[in-house]
Amino acid sequence: MGNKNSNTQKSPLQGVRGLDVCLSPALIPLFNVEDYVVVIIDIFRATSSICYGIENGAEAIIPVSQVEECAAYAEKGFDYLLAAERDGKVVDGFDFGNSPFSYTKEKVAGKTIVLTTTNGTHALHLSRGAKKIVIGSFLNLTSLSNWLKVQNENILLVCAGWKNNFNLEDTLFAGAVVGQLQGLNFKPDDAAIAAYDLYHTGKHDIDAYLKKTSHSERLIKLGIEKDIEFCLQVDLTTAIPVLDCDRMVNLSSSVKHR
Amino acid sequence: MGNKNSNTQKSPLQGVRGLDVCLSPALIPLFNVEDYVVVIIDIFRATSSICYGIENGAEAIIPVSQVEECAAYAEKGFDYLLAAERDGKVVDGFDFGNSPFSYTKEKVAGKTIVLTTTNGTHALHLSRGAKKIVIGSFLNLTSLSNWLKVQNENILLVCAGWKNNFNLEDTLFAGAVVGQLQGLNFKPDDAAIAAYDLYHTGKHDIDAYLKKTSHSERLIKLGIEKDIEFCLQVDLTTAIPVLDCDRMVNLSSSVKHR
Repeated sequence: MGNKNSNTQKSPLQGVRGLDVCLSPALIPLFNVEDYVVVIIDIFRATSSICYGIENGAEAIIPVSQVEECAAYAEKGFDYLLAAERDGKVVDGFDFGNSPFSYTKEKVAGKTIVLTTTNGTHALHLSRGAKKIVIGSFLNLTSLSNWLKVQNENILLVCAGWKNNFNLEDTLFAGAVVGQLQGLNFKPDDAAIAAYDLYHTGKHDIDAYLKKTSHSERLIKLGIEKDIEFCLQVDLTTAIPVLDCDRMVNLSSSVKHR
Repeated sequence: MGNKNSNTQKSPLQGVRGLDVCLSPALIPLFNVEDYVVVIIDIFRATSSICYGIENGAEAIIPVSQVEECAAYAEKGFDYLLAAERDGKVVDGFDFGNSPFSYTKEKVAGKTIVLTTTNGTHALHLSRGAKKIVIGSFLNLTSLSNWLKVQNENILLVCAGWKNNFNLEDTLFAGAVVGQLQGLNFKPDDAAIAAYDLYHTGKHDIDAYLKKTSHSERLIKLGIEKDIEFCLQVDLTTAIPVLDCDRMVNLSSSVKHR
């Protein structure tokens, strides 16, 4: 664990496509990410906001882990929108926080946004070297899954979690993707089987299911129930954000430009 | 992750008992183990064999991670039974392998056994510093759970997994323990909720449920289906193995001796 010795890293078997779920960023080093298309999942709220922002025409979203890094972009003189929160409140001097409601067409179309997201950035950083890194949330579930189906690549669904801890919301979404890919020539690992079964348990009322979790309690305390409700909407968007160097851009425009 | 900075480690809240599940040894550093009674879980087959051996009167079982370490005990001239396997076969010169069928009364009563178990030893090692470390398996499920109920301590169920990877059999057992502790003043974390829901999904036929997992496939290839069946028996035993320095002994005799 922690080293990149390929003898101890998982790679999918020959002849079938691996469909693996990484339940915490702390487990990413167990996977040989070079063998996978990676999907980063941070449902409350980073990857939901990113999907919504890219759908609404944001030129790019740059994820950073610290408010200070975010502020540094302003100091460099770039005309970027800056998104930073502490304890559920927009940090003084920033344009907005992490709520998906900040990522409307009116606010973000044509803009580049620097977004502070600790868990998401951590997961992205550890997934560097993957064949491709895309962003998933309930908002773009079907569109993302349909794209994954035709990639002919192994897939690693990375749950960003909370400070490396397992969380249910990210795992449930991973399970939803596994569900969409069922019946194809994929070989799910144990975590993918578990994620799917948990999704199956919770899918009829994901909101209610997640209410029993610690993270959800924490978010409710922050007064962002409306954000939670928003992030659990299925197929509100179709855009697939993809990492292009340090920026997340719309996959379709990224393809067009190359 | 990886460092022991208590700011980033989980400790249960005041006033309720934490009931947390650690889904991989790689996640143990996220927990402040000093706050917990730890249960080590390695269903196929280390902790099942340990429960069965202690039940059958083994004086002590010493877990080691390498066959070479195991052999070293013989060189030291101790009159120990040595258990070591490679690829499902007893290593030449050793008394037996890791099959629970080797841990019968006839073979182990009054003996000390040195057992080679990579994942279990790894999990044990990382849990050092816990208030107490006990051993769980389906074999001693109810006895262990009843003991946990009256400890008035936070509980951390550690799944030994497979080379730090999540596995379903250990998680299902963790979920079975969570189920037995329901209705008491425990606060389960997200992983404990997930483990319980997975157990609930699989409990009517755990053997069939686990057949779909990778690890189970691997074990079937090794020709040890009978071991798997044996390890999934519920409440065959009542002994609770507890770590006493480097040796696992029967909790009740350990208490008697003090």
